[in-house]
Amino acid sequence: MTGSVSAADTADYGLLSPVWAGTTGAGRTGDRRIVQKLLDVELQWLRVLAGAGVIAPQLPDEAAPAFRADLYDPASLAARSAGGGNPVIPLLADLRAKVRDISPAAAEAVHTAATSQDILDTALMLVSADTLAGIASDTRRTMSALAGLAVEHRHTLCVARTLTQHSLPSTFGLRAAQWLHGIGQAAEALETTASRLPLQWGGGSGTLAALRTVVDASGSAATPLELADELALRLGLAAPAAPWQGNRLPVTAVGAALQDLLSAAGKIANDVLLMSRPEVAEVSEPRAAGRGGSSAMPQKRNPVLSVLIRSAALAGPGCGAALQTAAGAADDERPGGSWHTEWQALRSLLRLASGAAEKLAELTEGLTVNTAVLRDNLLTAGPLVVSERLMATVAPLLDDDGGPGSGKARLQELVTAAQTMGSSLGEMLRKSVSADVLSDAELAAQLDPANYVGEASALIDRILAAYPVRSSR
Amino acid sequence: MTGSVSAADTADYGLLSPVWAGTTGAGRTGDRRIVQKLLDVELQWLRVLAGAGVIAPQLPDEAAPAFRADLYDPASLAARSAGGGNPVIPLLADLRAKVRDISPAAAEAVHTAATSQDILDTALMLVSADTLAGIASDTRRTMSALAGLAVEHRHTLCVARTLTQHSLPSTFGLRAAQWLHGIGQAAEALETTASRLPLQWGGGSGTLAALRTVVDASGSAATPLELADELALRLGLAAPAAPWQGNRLPVTAVGAALQDLLSAAGKIANDVLLMSRPEVAEVSEPRAAGRGGSSAMPQKRNPVLSVLIRSAALAGPGCGAALQTAAGAADDERPGGSWHTEWQALRSLLRLASGAAEKLAELTEGLTVNTAVLRDNLLTAGPLVVSERLMATVAPLLDDDGGPGSGKARLQELVTAAQTMGSSLGEMLRKSVSADVLSDAELAAQLDPANYVGEASALIDRILAAYPVRSSR
Amino acid sequence: MTGSVSAADTADYGLLSPVWAGTTGAGRTGDRRIVQKLLDVELQWLRVLAGAGVIAPQLPDEAAPAFRADLYDPASLAARSAGGGNPVIPLLADLRAKVRDISPAAAEAVHTAATSQDILDTALMLVSADTLAGIASDTRRTMSALAGLAVEHRHTLCVARTLTQHSLPSTFGLRAAQWLHGIGQAAEALETTASRLPLQWGGGSGTLAALRTVVDASGSAATPLELADELALRLGLAAPAAPWQGNRLPVTAVGAALQDLLSAAGKIANDVLLMSRPEVAEVSEPRAAGRGGSSAMPQKRNPVLSVLIRSAALAGPGCGAALQTAAGAADDERPGGSWHTEWQALRSLLRLASGAAEKLAELTEGLTVNTAVLRDNLLTAGPLVVSERLMATVAPLLDDDGGPGSGKARLQELVTAAQTMGSSLGEMLRKSVSADVLSDAELAAQLDPANYVGEASALIDRILAAYPVRSSR
Amino acid sequence: MTGSVSAADTADYGLLSPVWAGTTGAGRTGDRRIVQKLLDVELQWLRVLAGAGVIAPQLPDEAAPAFRADLYDPASLAARSAGGGNPVIPLLADLRAKVRDISPAAAEAVHTAATSQDILDTALMLVSADTLAGIASDTRRTMSALAGLAVEHRHTLCVARTLTQHSLPSTFGLRAAQWLHGIGQAAEALETTASRLPLQWGGGSGTLAALRTVVDASGSAATPLELADELALRLGLAAPAAPWQGNRLPVTAVGAALQDLLSAAGKIANDVLLMSRPEVAEVSEPRAAGRGGSSAMPQKRNPVLSVLIRSAALAGPGCGAALQTAAGAADDERPGGSWHTEWQALRSLLRLASGAAEKLAELTEGLTVNTAVLRDNLLTAGPLVVSERLMATVAPLLDDDGGPGSGKARLQELVTAAQTMGSSLGEMLRKSVSADVLSDAELAAQLDPANYVGEASALIDRILAAYPVRSSR
Repeated sequence: MTGSVSAADTADYGLLSPVWAGTTGAGRTGDRRIVQKLLDVELQWLRVLAGAGVIAPQLPDEAAPAFRADLYDPASLAARSAGGGNPVIPLLADLRAKVRDISPAAAEAVHTAATSQDILDTALMLVSADTLAGIASDTRRTMSALAGLAVEHRHTLCVARTLTQHSLPSTFGLRAAQWLHGIGQAAEALETTASRLPLQWGGGSGTLAALRTVVDASGSAATPLELADELALRLGLAAPAAPWQGNRLPVTAVGAALQDLLSAAGKIANDVLLMSRPEVAEVSEPRAAGRGGSSAMPQKRNPVLSVLIRSAALAGPGCGAALQTAAGAADDERPGGSWHTEWQALRSLLRLASGAAEKLAELTEGLTVNTAVLRDNLLTAGPLVVSERLMATVAPLLDDDGGPGSGKARLQELVTAAQTMGSSLGEMLRKSVSADVLSDAELAAQLDPANYVGEASALIDRILAAYPVRSSR
Repeated sequence: MTGSVSAADTADYGLLSPVWAGTTGAGRTGDRRIVQKLLDVELQWLRVLAGAGVIAPQLPDEAAPAFRADLYDPASLAARSAGGGNPVIPLLADLRAKVRDISPAAAEAVHTAATSQDILDTALMLVSADTLAGIASDTRRTMSALAGLAVEHRHTLCVARTLTQHSLPSTFGLRAAQWLHGIGQAAEALETTASRLPLQWGGGSGTLAALRTVVDASGSAATPLELADELALRLGLAAPAAPWQGNRLPVTAVGAALQDLLSAAGKIANDVLLMSRPEVAEVSEPRAAGRGGSSAMPQKRNPVLSVLIRSAALAGPGCGAALQTAAGAADDERPGGSWHTEWQALRSLLRLASGAAEKLAELTEGLTVNTAVLRDNLLTAGPLVVSERLMATVAPLLDDDGGPGSGKARLQELVTAAQTMGSSLGEMLRKSVSADVLSDAELAAQLDPANYVGEASALIDRILAAYPVRSSR
Repeated sequence: MTGSVSAADTADYGLLSPVWAGTTGAGRTGDRRIVQKLLDVELQWLRVLAGAGVIAPQLPDEAAPAFRADLYDPASLAARSAGGGNPVIPLLADLRAKVRDISPAAAEAVHTAATSQDILDTALMLVSADTLAGIASDTRRTMSALAGLAVEHRHTLCVARTLTQHSLPSTFGLRAAQWLHGIGQAAEALETTASRLPLQWGGGSGTLAALRTVVDASGSAATPLELADELALRLGLAAPAAPWQGNRLPVTAVGAALQDLLSAAGKIANDVLLMSRPEVAEVSEPRAAGRGGSSAMPQKRNPVLSVLIRSAALAGPGCGAALQTAAGAADDERPGGSWHTEWQALRSLLRLASGAAEKLAELTEGLTVNTAVLRDNLLTAGPLVVSERLMATVAPLLDDDGGPGSGKARLQELVTAAQTMGSSLGEMLRKSVSADVLSDAELAAQLDPANYVGEASALIDRILAAYPVRSSR
Repeated sequence: MTGSVSAADTADYGLLSPVWAGTTGAGRTGDRRIVQKLLDVELQWLRVLAGAGVIAPQLPDEAAPAFRADLYDPASLAARSAGGGNPVIPLLADLRAKVRDISPAAAEAVHTAATSQDILDTALMLVSADTLAGIASDTRRTMSALAGLAVEHRHTLCVARTLTQHSLPSTFGLRAAQWLHGIGQAAEALETTASRLPLQWGGGSGTLAALRTVVDASGSAATPLELADELALRLGLAAPAAPWQGNRLPVTAVGAALQDLLSAAGKIANDVLLMSRPEVAEVSEPRAAGRGGSSAMPQKRNPVLSVLIRSAALAGPGCGAALQTAAGAADDERPGGSWHTEWQALRSLLRLASGAAEKLAELTEGLTVNTAVLRDNLLTAGPLVVSERLMATVAPLLDDDGGPGSGKARLQELVTAAQTMGSSLGEMLRKSVSADVLSDAELAAQLDPANYVGEASALIDRILAAYPVRSSR
């Protein structure tokens, strides 16, 4: 039945994933790019072999013209990958045919002592490296934008919210700094992960036996492990202690870092979605031609960037669970099935995270902050948002015969009255405490949210110091 | 940055998902097919409107030539979908432009009183319907094959295994029937789900207000809900009680049914993988040219069908979790973000399940059953696999001064001796029980696994009756 | 090391799961209740055997006093379950010892021809049955409350929201009806699932071989499958076609239904959380002594019921993924490992769903609806929320030389002007359309959101008819 | 309804989770221990305040006797936690009452300027710290055992398996070293995570405003952040840049590390399960009294340790997905709902991982390796397992008129003939290659799997060097 399906019919360009459709990150992770990375690994391996005298020195250059992805049909490779269970096998057939036309000797040398898992795992690490670099670049933009917001709004008052309700005064600068706190942690983990992406090189079953055979036959002085380490160096990957054909933690490490970025980005998107609700109106997304419209309602200005980032954050954990399940279901020297589960789950995460990172940079760089509304929402909340402070400062003045602590109970009654009957907390307090003990000015100061933001500014500085902005290139 | 990414670079043809790459199911769920279904919904809606006299009767036919997916570029639509957050908005722009060239009046009528969620949700139900039908067809093949194996091997002895160890005698027919038991349950759930896939039709916010306006203006006697029900009928979908823009259980229902199919298929694949291990060698996968080979080891005959089915079963739960998370994170009259998470997760499940169903049909239809090995593995297990029976029948004969039950302890000792010292359980029993009480022939009968398969045959009949094979078309 | 851990140290009473801690549902699913259900299965099986003449008729009654959970120490059973991998094995040891003290013959009869999986799977189905019944009862309360809200607020205007932004006018009655729509679907699925919970009965490896042996030895005329069906009847479970020791879809079915309930409940909780934000203030949770307080801020009235329901909805998919992963990882006649994964995941889902159902009933029965605020939020949105209608009705009156459709472009300009420059859409329209064509009264009617709620009332009726309220007992 | 549920009914001692039931790790994570850690945080905070002169110096010592978990009823606290949504609120009520009996002034000081999230998040980090330490200890035992196996079996031949089929010769020492490779990576990540567990300290909304107020009132020279850092030091936690009430990556970091341990342990368990199947019989689990038995089949020796470890590995990803989903669904200064989701998911992972780590240590320390069977399984595979080598070494000798590469095709034919017709590959090769070119001895050497294990020994050394064994205390 397969024969009747045209490639054009099966292609996924991201029509159902607008968060990454059409982005640079999508290009970095498309089938064509995967093919190129597979070819890169094979060609660099030829160069390593030639460099070590295992094959004739001219073979890599002779064969090189065949190692370009645009010579191969990814749809056909995909369809044929079911035969052996992975795409390396059909690609190798096509590659050898093309190389044979140029140089039969080079064709014999292609894939020497390698196994398809070596090529595919390593290529996916290369794809991860490129995508992580792209994400890092976008994330630096975000961090710079957030640092800017934190500094600019260091003194912009706003109301903090816990469990959806107004809690205490805060500043928008601290909120932005906290976004930086989250993204900064994710960025650090991504950087660490990127620096550790390992080569996979083990041959048929992780013993490098075939390589030992050909090296011995060639008379080369190199050891198989030296050649593998040399390949890692050429590809910009870390040289692992050993192959990891059955130990899949290098893959879950990438997955965890990508998920953390998605979660940190999702937190920001959730906040922006809440704050850009018409009733809250504290921020709005950057405008762009054609963005945020509706197919039916002309007035709609949907916060689409945040919507799409949130959609990615909600999708991430499922992909992560697939990677982790696969790692824990592995068996033998190469797992039958669980290994195959990883590939698409990893790509999905790479695409979601790079799409979200790109959108997040645009969102944070262009976020409109409505300073006046932020302040209004705080003031509307009234003195109730400082009732925590009143508990500490005014309640003791209310202590009565009930002894120490009775003032707290009294204040709680007043707060409840303010909430349920609309009474003014300020007026009730004024009546309850003698002006001798607490002057009008002192009471007003106690009721003013503006001077109850605690260490907000110091925390901004701590966060800025912990996650310094780096120039983006 | 988007501009520099070519569509060809971003396309996913399944290179990293061999279980569905190149299959009919992949064609049913590709971006192009999604576009076609979006267009189908829009065109049928025009027909409904025309039929009810809301728009001029000739408009649908005039406009129809523009409703062909091959006129549109899915990659471009995908890239532009980020603007409004979904692909309907750019498609509508392109569609209206094309229709306008044919009939400006028809262009005005396109998408009347609809919202993008109506179109997209309904299109995804249509895509689901097609894919479920394809899966049902492949699953009928599987069920027929399994029923055949159950009958053919009704008396083929084998060893049952629990927690990886030999447990009791059984028959391969019962094992095949149990596979049918699992797949049959999944098939029933899929059929139920397929029959309930609902239309989504609510307009901008689920009130059908715009439709009421245009119906009233047209003087049509139809009510908006009648028109929606008529659209459901035309599209072959169920008419729901109300729109479900924020109630996403119709989507999780599809997800649950697909996951169950994957789990039932995964169970079979796991068994085949175990039974086709060289040391077990009870079954082998059907051979096909180019299948099961390795890039390095010429002797390899990998059970690739099972490997790929297993890979899909391991990937399914992550997609299901994404769908369920999205449903539970929904809010408002249309969720910002969680709705967008569903689309790709649903497509991924559709692809995984249809790929697995196709592979499973091929696997079960062509499975080679090594009857002799099945029997040998049972006999090698020796009389220990009937020790449960011996506990019931022979142990009481061993009762001694310890009173009732002491024979069981004695038998347990003999079993342990047989396991740890390699003593023959049969010989030990012969020595322990007088031939007057248990003749040699009686003892031999007790030790023979062949007559300790219980209700295996009756269970096969129960399963066959519960999941009757239907002709595949 | 195990020995040094006291039971009291390991107990989980729900301290970290307030959504279910201390609820009836928690009691239905605690270790003690699991033990009781395990004992119930064993005792009813004795009765079946006695009824069929397989064992002496008086044995069940003689032994019955030993089948009470309070005679056993669940913590000790739990700790000892690691030995055989499941809790049935140590329970059986303790049970037999107790029964032996009463009746050695009955002790011999206990667990006849059964296997631990039969007992545990069946007991978990009984626990599921009880919990589903409790959930159904709470859900009927919720449905009744929601139906009441739908009827009461049939004409209560409010603003609908899509992608977080104001979209169109609607009614709070429709919103409540849509909540009913979601819960009603989940309730139906739960009811179906509850009616299909199957007995597990297969003996050591699903062949009922041991049972055949003892039945034959007893001279009973019953067949093993008849006895199993009789047990199902006694326990109130469905009689399956065959054992399902390796086919785990009965478990995933329960999981899917529970997850759907959680998602439908989560949707409502999310809406309540949004609507009870101070800036929106459309609803508030029922008050209760000690609820919603903070450890620090005396003014806090947190919407705790919704918070906890939401926490359960977010936790559900992970448990569901575990169940589905386990089902798809099953192998052999009894899976080694994946079966063991199910138990706690199933219990977690039962607890989350029953806790959420209880909280949801309380929430919906006591929800305060702030009718005036609902209307105010709509009116504040202004005429922009009817711009969809204006597109259909007024835009054509704006058509100019640009021909048909040009009016829509003109209206879009006016809408944008209203949004970005604060101009009054009504005034601009007044200036743009001659009063001859559209009188002041006609324009005002077009701008009034109150008469643009479409089929809201009809949809309420459809939902009420589809999910009729049943009396709760 | 809550009132009618007894604590004993709701308790979970692990009856459905034998992997951790009754273990030390279960004790470290039970409700009672959580209560103790909550109390520890409160008491140490009193000490910090006293040390800085914020409260009277004698208060902590006076109050200290009330900070013992055994004075509180965890079941009651759990049931009452629904009121405020977390267990800190009822605990604080009980604690203050007890302290008040001793010292009213101390009671006033308890929880000064703290919020329940500070206490709960920090307590869960302390619980994590203890559990991670326990896991690290068990994991060191495992690593030591695996290193021992790697060295002992450096030259023990075995057959490697890829996609379930025999692939190439290897050594059991390399297999054990690869297990060490996986566990070693997980152990490193756990150690890093353990060293970074942060204090949470932010007060009501992350500004430390209340603390600033009391510090100022006290005249203490300390800053709020200095006091927080001092608390971190006292508790053995890291001092974070800022509170992380809405940034949940510290929690996902713990989750990721625990999941990786579970996956690495799962890999080993899967291998042991396969290798201990009767048909493979290469290893067997350590025996222990009462372990591995069946309730029905006396001969059963189930590999229960591996079964339970595998069950934990399959359960982990669902818990991880819950943590990650919660992190990505966070909003505001304290998330309403998603925060509450984390607690139990984190505890579940801690319990699963610590139970698995304990079982894994026992498994690896006591694993029986059947050296002879390992070798037999390799030899039974015959020369086909070296066909990769023959491709490199003998195939060229078969080159015929087909030119370079034709020998490979010829060898492939011979391999296929050996597989499908049972012909001896060795004999066919003998006939195909002249003894002048390849002597009998040379051919025998080529066919001998024993000298085709490549770099197995060097890889063992690399892994041992990368993951050195540390003394366990």
